[in-house]
Amino acid sequence: MKDYEDFPPIVIKRGKGIYLYDENGKQYIDAVSSWWVNLFGHANERISSALADQAFQLEHAIFANFTHEPAIFLAEKLAEITPDGLNKVFFADNGSSAIEVALKMSFQYHMQKNRPKKKRFLALTDAYHGETLGALSVGGVDLYNEVFQPLLLDTIRAQGPDCFRCPFNEEPGSCNTPCITYVEEQLKRHHEEITAIIIEPLIQAAAGMKMYPSAYLRRLKELCVQYDIHLIADEVAVGFGRTGTMFACEQAGITPDFLCLSKGLTGGYLPLSVVLTTDEVYEAFYDDYGTMKAFLHSHSYTGNALACRVALEVLQIFADEHVIEQNREKSNFMKEYAASVFQHQPYIGEYRQTGMVGAIELVINKETKEPFPSEERVGYQIYKLALEKGLLLRPLGNILYFMPPYVITKEEIKTMIDLANEAIQQWKQGGSSRVYLINSKSGGSEVE
Amino acid sequence: MKDYEDFPPIVIKRGKGIYLYDENGKQYIDAVSSWWVNLFGHANERISSALADQAFQLEHAIFANFTHEPAIFLAEKLAEITPDGLNKVFFADNGSSAIEVALKMSFQYHMQKNRPKKKRFLALTDAYHGETLGALSVGGVDLYNEVFQPLLLDTIRAQGPDCFRCPFNEEPGSCNTPCITYVEEQLKRHHEEITAIIIEPLIQAAAGMKMYPSAYLRRLKELCVQYDIHLIADEVAVGFGRTGTMFACEQAGITPDFLCLSKGLTGGYLPLSVVLTTDEVYEAFYDDYGTMKAFLHSHSYTGNALACRVALEVLQIFADEHVIEQNREKSNFMKEYAASVFQHQPYIGEYRQTGMVGAIELVINKETKEPFPSEERVGYQIYKLALEKGLLLRPLGNILYFMPPYVITKEEIKTMIDLANEAIQQWKQGGSSRVYLINSKSGGSEVE
Ligand SMILES: Cc1ncc(COP(=O)(O)O)c(C=O)c1O
Ligand SMILES: Cc1ncc(COP(=O)(O)O)c(C=O)c1O
Repeated sequence: MKDYEDFPPIVIKRGKGIYLYDENGKQYIDAVSSWWVNLFGHANERISSALADQAFQLEHAIFANFTHEPAIFLAEKLAEITPDGLNKVFFADNGSSAIEVALKMSFQYHMQKNRPKKKRFLALTDAYHGETLGALSVGGVDLYNEVFQPLLLDTIRAQGPDCFRCPFNEEPGSCNTPCITYVEEQLKRHHEEITAIIIEPLIQAAAGMKMYPSAYLRRLKELCVQYDIHLIADEVAVGFGRTGTMFACEQAGITPDFLCLSKGLTGGYLPLSVVLTTDEVYEAFYDDYGTMKAFLHSHSYTGNALACRVALEVLQIFADEHVIEQNREKSNFMKEYAASVFQHQPYIGEYRQTGMVGAIELVINKETKEPFPSEERVGYQIYKLALEKGLLLRPLGNILYFMPPYVITKEEIKTMIDLANEAIQQWKQGGSSRVYLINSKSGGSEVE
Repeated sequence: MKDYEDFPPIVIKRGKGIYLYDENGKQYIDAVSSWWVNLFGHANERISSALADQAFQLEHAIFANFTHEPAIFLAEKLAEITPDGLNKVFFADNGSSAIEVALKMSFQYHMQKNRPKKKRFLALTDAYHGETLGALSVGGVDLYNEVFQPLLLDTIRAQGPDCFRCPFNEEPGSCNTPCITYVEEQLKRHHEEITAIIIEPLIQAAAGMKMYPSAYLRRLKELCVQYDIHLIADEVAVGFGRTGTMFACEQAGITPDFLCLSKGLTGGYLPLSVVLTTDEVYEAFYDDYGTMKAFLHSHSYTGNALACRVALEVLQIFADEHVIEQNREKSNFMKEYAASVFQHQPYIGEYRQTGMVGAIELVINKETKEPFPSEERVGYQIYKLALEKGLLLRPLGNILYFMPPYVITKEEIKTMIDLANEAIQQWKQGGSSRVYLINSKSGGSEVE
């Protein structure tokens, strides 16, 4: 909040396509899809119309013993398009609650299978799964969970893949994912007490768009089978086409035991999440009421009709407009153009991309890959410069990234990258101090 | 899920006012406001129009460094109408996440005040605060949290008020709330390790609409001040007029340190929640970025523009239509009529009411107040009979309750109560077995 003294919040008045407009009519390219949620642009005609239509029919109804077509059709559709074997759908409100549901369901499953030792989860370093206490417990980003440690579950943590600073000096893509041994070691030691492994498939997003190859996922799945441990795939950020396929798990050809989805599920409109699971998991809970085997977890707005209807429209757009296919071309263009612009610059350690997610890693030294100290807030400085230029490029520490809405055109991709580059050049020329100066001069009211 | 073999889910096609309509056109009075969320009827013209309007302007934008008028106006309005001193508003997605925010913020506050011993929360028996692991930890309803115990925080629990089966043989309203001593004792013993007390003001809703007098809240607040412990008021269920005043805390004339709101906040349309807190709490987090004192907790859809706009419209309806005042008359009518119908019946232990919430407690024996064993699912039997009659009256164990949308008329209140009474009479005549019979005859496809 104190940052706002120098850099007050920008008041957005409206949105259209990839653009947000502030109260002064200034336009911003939403290069981060408003935290990775928007797919088909702001104030999308089709989605807004579907939402309005639903609002005048049925906005919401209790979801216990009652249901409605948007929820039924959405569940059917999701079971159809997700990896084979995921036939059961559980609704929740946001990404965090989807994670809580998966953790609780996995845990209760093992209890009901008479494995009382299984009380812990395994997660990767730098993982991010949300911020309610359960979700935060499996997260590994200190920034979010350090102060809350005394309230968190005792999660077993394995060193995750780090392709940019590979400890095995391998090249991503060609490697044998030797880093899977970190997980293997923890499993050997702890498998009897582990309920599930939770991961962000292909991209550890909040960690700074850390990308790793699908082979890693394949081996992870094998280990889960070998040790009889659930695999929870958290595709809250990467689902719905972000990695180039509808779901990231597809690239590894695996079916997790639980698949958590949110964010893009409603195309950036409304909080809604789902957890998909297998018939096998479902059966473990299916029994007479009196046995108390049912999985109980509800939210007031579970199965919200407005959000389900919006999600249905999103899936229809995917089908009608061959989005995954269309994105392939855009993604190739983005990769080529961004690489040509950023690859050989000082302070840019690498430009990496998976599907529709591109990331720039800023470093002090290209050879040693030494990172900028976090106090310097390098990403934040560039972010402020980019905003002046009409580009919303919210960083993750030293990582700037592009995760635009899919309605972006090649021309706009070029503009987005050019503006980012301009901001970077300006920062290199000491632009960051200039911004500070401007802000203090203007009395903290606005950035020029 | 197995219940659905005999009693399949009802597919709702549309809603209007207090009514839901299924795919066959059958009408149901939504006597529970779809789990206590609906205030002004289903598919409300004003709210749906506001939502549609917002959808074509700005559906959602990242809420970090960016904001928008619906969020600004909503925060201002909430600060204005909530108890004095609650000036700061934190947004989240649902009731559970609001609770998680309050718990985390209270905890971090104490850490930053250098009180590292304060790691535990105090909550009441039978409390319900949601089902993400943090919220579930402070809940005291075994049904929801027993199996998950190994994953939950070690909450200190105090016996809550139980006015129906008062251990002190007092009458609610006239008593001196001697049951506050249960809390006092726990505080004496544990205050040094307690961060906050969390309660549901005036009505422990999920516990079965357990109602208690405002004097209890006043004494609780005094104890919190005395021991320098935060008071978290969870008004997720009781906020927005349910208890007869806009917020339940008003009746006790207290300001909690944290006020959690959700459900009615959007009039039953969309998941959205807020946590209000004091300047004093806010100041403890306000510092330069580098000190890392900021409270970090975000959800992808934090500050969702659609939900904020809907909430604003809801507050406007409260003002325009003098809802709290109008409700007073309806509530008086409901109390008189329901009491006259239910008071002197066998198997009905009591009819109790607070504001717009009325509850029937079913007992085997009116004198001893002996409850029906939960395996008999008495509430559930009556619920099924009521559904046949077009009344949605979802029970909580042995408690049937009325928590209708505020747009209900006196005539409709009478119908609602009459239908509930008919269902109860039918159940008394052994109607429950009849329903089972019908269901199995019709091949589990539909209830007649
Ligand atoms: C991978 C992942 N999981 C879970 C979450 C939490 O979702 P939400 O913010 O909706 O609670 C996020 C949010 O950024 C995420 O990126
Ligand atoms: C008092 C109270 N707190 C919290 C919650 C949790 O809210 P949600 O279901 O939106 O997570 C509820 C839900 O019924 C509630 O009644």
